[in-house]
Amino acid sequence: MKKIKLVLDAISTDGNIEQIVEGMVKAIQNNNSIIIYIVGPKQEINDILMKLDYNKEQIIIVDASDKITNLDNPLTAIRQKKESSLYKSFQILKENDDIEGFITAGSTGAILCGAIMYLKRITDKRPTLVTQLPGKDEFFCLVDCGANVDCDPEHLRDFATMATVYMQTIYPTRNIRVGLVSNGSEEGKGNKVSKETYELLKNSKLNFVGNIEGNDITNSKCDVLLCDGFVGNVILKNIEGTAKLLINDLINIIKNTQDDNEKKILKKAISKLLAQYDFNSFGGATLLGVNKLIFKGHGTANSDTIYTLINQCYELVNANFIDKLAKTLLQQ
Amino acid sequence: MKKIKLVLDAISTDGNIEQIVEGMVKAIQNNNSIIIYIVGPKQEINDILMKLDYNKEQIIIVDASDKITNLDNPLTAIRQKKESSLYKSFQILKENDDIEGFITAGSTGAILCGAIMYLKRITDKRPTLVTQLPGKDEFFCLVDCGANVDCDPEHLRDFATMATVYMQTIYPTRNIRVGLVSNGSEEGKGNKVSKETYELLKNSKLNFVGNIEGNDITNSKCDVLLCDGFVGNVILKNIEGTAKLLINDLINIIKNTQDDNEKKILKKAISKLLAQYDFNSFGGATLLGVNKLIFKGHGTANSDTIYTLINQCYELVNANFIDKLAKTLLQQ
Repeated sequence: MKKIKLVLDAISTDGNIEQIVEGMVKAIQNNNSIIIYIVGPKQEINDILMKLDYNKEQIIIVDASDKITNLDNPLTAIRQKKESSLYKSFQILKENDDIEGFITAGSTGAILCGAIMYLKRITDKRPTLVTQLPGKDEFFCLVDCGANVDCDPEHLRDFATMATVYMQTIYPTRNIRVGLVSNGSEEGKGNKVSKETYELLKNSKLNFVGNIEGNDITNSKCDVLLCDGFVGNVILKNIEGTAKLLINDLINIIKNTQDDNEKKILKKAISKLLAQYDFNSFGGATLLGVNKLIFKGHGTANSDTIYTLINQCYELVNANFIDKLAKTLLQQ
Repeated sequence: MKKIKLVLDAISTDGNIEQIVEGMVKAIQNNNSIIIYIVGPKQEINDILMKLDYNKEQIIIVDASDKITNLDNPLTAIRQKKESSLYKSFQILKENDDIEGFITAGSTGAILCGAIMYLKRITDKRPTLVTQLPGKDEFFCLVDCGANVDCDPEHLRDFATMATVYMQTIYPTRNIRVGLVSNGSEEGKGNKVSKETYELLKNSKLNFVGNIEGNDITNSKCDVLLCDGFVGNVILKNIEGTAKLLINDLINIIKNTQDDNEKKILKKAISKLLAQYDFNSFGGATLLGVNKLIFKGHGTANSDTIYTLINQCYELVNANFIDKLAKTLLQQ
């Protein structure tokens, strides 16, 4: 069986290295086809690994002592912080053709800059960031979720194409539908850019299902929800914020409840809801359009997130995603 | 005491006229300074009024048999449907200087077209649509919530000014803070238009508190949340959609609950949540920038909505809102 080699950034999260290492070990314990280059402080990683049971041939530690944070200027940091885990990770990816994926929970800005500086684009298309979110019936993907804030209609159409290949690879049995974020569901609704994008999508090979209004975003009306990275970022965080607000309201209802049994029942319901909206448990965002697969977890990524991200990355590499994407983009 | 005259559109909602008439009668029963011109089918309105107890001097019925729906082309309908309640309402507003406000639950597009065609702008500024939403600690206002999808930075600054006067008039004790929707809270984040708007706001007389991310939209970090009408519409409906999704999840938890007592407790919590997110109970959107105050309720407006909208409209007229707004815009 083909071995798949991935790079894992051990120190760009807000959390501790232990979580990252544990997530990695769980992933290789479950899949002996993965080889991981983990980039971070060698001694510390070794100390954590000492306590764990795993196949030593599946892990290569690459020493890196420094880290790029959200306080750094992304462009300057990814150029100058040469001892950082993120810089070193990109060099490994650049220098080794047989390493196909990268998992990190680092600064989005620095990841984007690094990918553009050190990796190659698949075609001349702009890379884009996608993320999966829970909808009413099934997961859907939001594209662009924050990488490209000002977009032309052509950029948006390319993003839709890339996200369609991405979702089709992950969910082979679905017929991937593309929806366009707009201020009304009817054709003709939208701003200047979205109206022009509508025309491009209608005349493309994509399975375009029309405009999607804000109240239908989570209603499973499409598999790929398309917008620019400004709107995508606002939508993503707005869902999170609104969910928190409602859960907070439920917590207040509990606080005002006298009956202990009632409190217990409500608390149980809240934990179920929280589990459903725990963005950690279902991973992060994926950068599409460069010649390696980059998975970015939340800064709060824990061992479960890392485990999920490694598996997702493995699955896409194993399905020859990059080749499929290149072929589709060239045929567009 | 000064009498305040308002127009009420009786037939542009999805619901029945009875709800509109009942809301109106409740409002005038509680406030004998309001005089209402209700526009709709005279006979039907009279039949409903016959069963109610109210001061006859406070109500004038204007007969209108036709109605503009969301299926009509807004611009054509507001020009040609001369028997419609919306067309007739605008004529009354246009012809009577002493009628200062208008309450309708009709098509937003037709209301915007009607306002621009038949009423006067206060200054040369574009009119904008604002709406109040429940935040963590208090209500805030979203501007523009759907009227202007493509905006220049100057338009956005003007909207912020209008919304500030609006909120300051409604909440005199607050020091109205303006926040700008963006994809990050730091200065320098944003798309081309929002970055330029940031500069304008920073150098304005407004109490500008910086960028607001999607997860902070409902977090009471500002009183006026500024964005263009495309993003505003998406945010507004996304909050609604996410709230529904979570409530739906709670309903599913109930369905999977065997214990009857547990079911009862969860149902009670859901009704409380639903009441909190019942957009009917706290009104609709307000059009700012023309020489009359226009309040637009949801198409599903019931008697409570109409009652709330009439009161809100009365309060603003009584506080000389239009004069204040004109003065502020001219001094800007």
